Amino acid sequence: MKRYIGCDLGGTNLRAAIIDVETGSVLHQSSVPTLAREGHEAVMRRMADLFLQVIQSAGLQKEDIGGIGIGAPGVLDLERGETLFLPNLPGTWPHVPLAATILQLTGLPTVLLNDVRSITFGEWCFGAGRGVDTVAVFAIGTGIGGGLVVNGQLHLGIGGTGGELGHMVINYNGPRCGCGNFGCLETYASGPAIAAMGMKAVAQGLTTKIGELCEYDLNRITPELIAKAAASGDEIACDIYEKAGFYLGVAASSICAAVGPRRIILAGGVAHAGKLLFDPMERTMRARVHVMPVEQVEIVPALLGGNAGVIGAACWAEQSALNNAG
Amino acid sequence: MKRYIGCDLGGTNLRAAIIDVETGSVLHQSSVPTLAREGHEAVMRRMADLFLQVIQSAGLQKEDIGGIGIGAPGVLDLERGETLFLPNLPGTWPHVPLAATILQLTGLPTVLLNDVRSITFGEWCFGAGRGVDTVAVFAIGTGIGGGLVVNGQLHLGIGGTGGELGHMVINYNGPRCGCGNFGCLETYASGPAIAAMGMKAVAQGLTTKIGELCEYDLNRITPELIAKAAASGDEIACDIYEKAGFYLGVAASSICAAVGPRRIILAGGVAHAGKLLFDPMERTMRARVHVMPVEQVEIVPALLGGNAGVIGAACWAEQSALNNAG
Repeated sequence: MKRYIGCDLGGTNLRAAIIDVETGSVLHQSSVPTLAREGHEAVMRRMADLFLQVIQSAGLQKEDIGGIGIGAPGVLDLERGETLFLPNLPGTWPHVPLAATILQLTGLPTVLLNDVRSITFGEWCFGAGRGVDTVAVFAIGTGIGGGLVVNGQLHLGIGGTGGELGHMVINYNGPRCGCGNFGCLETYASGPAIAAMGMKAVAQGLTTKIGELCEYDLNRITPELIAKAAASGDEIACDIYEKAGFYLGVAASSICAAVGPRRIILAGGVAHAGKLLFDPMERTMRARVHVMPVEQVEIVPALLGGNAGVIGAACWAEQSALNNAG
Repeated sequence: MKRYIGCDLGGTNLRAAIIDVETGSVLHQSSVPTLAREGHEAVMRRMADLFLQVIQSAGLQKEDIGGIGIGAPGVLDLERGETLFLPNLPGTWPHVPLAATILQLTGLPTVLLNDVRSITFGEWCFGAGRGVDTVAVFAIGTGIGGGLVVNGQLHLGIGGTGGELGHMVINYNGPRCGCGNFGCLETYASGPAIAAMGMKAVAQGLTTKIGELCEYDLNRITPELIAKAAASGDEIACDIYEKAGFYLGVAASSICAAVGPRRIILAGGVAHAGKLLFDPMERTMRARVHVMPVEQVEIVPALLGGNAGVIGAACWAEQSALNNAG
């Protein structure tokens, strides 16, 4: 049984894991700094070295590895195996032949996938999406990434860009989003959007524990800090999560109408707020959706945590190998 | 080569057509009043009689027919072949075993499909969606119906409710929609929403040809009348279509981000406004979408007109027969 390597190409760290794609378990993993400022050539060599090193430290041979899947944070050309635009990496990697270069340096077939689509595929194969045919993922962090599995297939869309659920518009008249559109869900419910609601409350001088907890330094306000204030019963902090959950519920109502997933998965750091975020989201979605049987839609937390991306990328490499063989 | 019957179960008329599912051509068709107030039993008998009659007038035998597909305006249970809620028919047809009853009365295997999903499938098989794997349909009339083809499959969603693109939310704070949600696209760009913008302008006493054309009777204002005023250069009327197109463009930007269709098809009576509606829609979508290659998305008018539904329902019956045989 061949193993597969899943890789997470992050702005800060490169992580590679050897995955048993039959069970979704991480057999061995290793991580090194990306050092992205050294440029894409250097980063690709570092990636190849990392892959060869994890194979060796796992006590395996190259022949034991069926292929490599790389989850990359940005826009890709999946067919050519090129990066087109990685906004968080210096130089943004336009038309970098990442898959071909890694194949050349390691001798192992390599495929690319957007990082949040890797998480989506991982959660669907072995996590919170297991066993249902249609799944929507919202990954809430600095932005809101997303992914869709439709009728038992990871939905790639054009060049792998499908599933950008954070860029569904919930208010046509809303604030400018980082993507260039206006009123995207991301402008209302991402980590920075939640933090900004806390900053505003403190700056306005409202009575809230958020001020105390950040020692009146607005730079220190994070979604976690606001969640902490909310957990201690702070009304303003609870209201902030109530609002963020409401906005997510509105976007969920759109995705229920358009696609009708059996399960909606919340991933990313902000989802750790738990009931604070899930309750208003679920309440909003259930109150608003009547064009489809919303009682058959569950909202659940991601299960694989930080491993979802490497597991998903490895499973994607296996599926690609099977498709090529078939 | 078997023929298939496609049926459109409308609130006013029942229409049945014998379709050559190899070419999508309508070989023969016939229509009778639905007389829905007589109740579902009577309507189903009338449907069965209509089917037997079209077979006969086409000079065919029952053995020449592979099956019947019925496009029904509402929520269905596709697996059981039951209607669940047909809002425009008296009694709303809860749990009416439509497929089984037609099979019993005609001896022909019968499947159901939502009416706008039938249009979607018809346009995809033989109309404006031909040749691409992912398609979104907005059918703009009294409401805004929708449909999705994803990766070469009509997307059914839960019980056939997938693809309700008119009920994507474009303003979380928007007006109440007929569906119970708030701020759905349908509340902004359906026929009645467009007509209401004209009514408001006339009621406000704005200088517009709409008043003259409707002889100052607000009841007579329709999207067609406003389009007529716009065609003669009336600024208020042009603005109304500019706005409706803008709202459609915002919804299109959400569906581009979430799904990434290669083609977006506008169907329904309101789409006959043509450039008046298409231009602002396309402009809005192209200006707003940056998370996917929007230059690869086309917006096109439906091609099959009033025949899309019966063609799609018949093709769906054939596909169901093939799936059952396979």
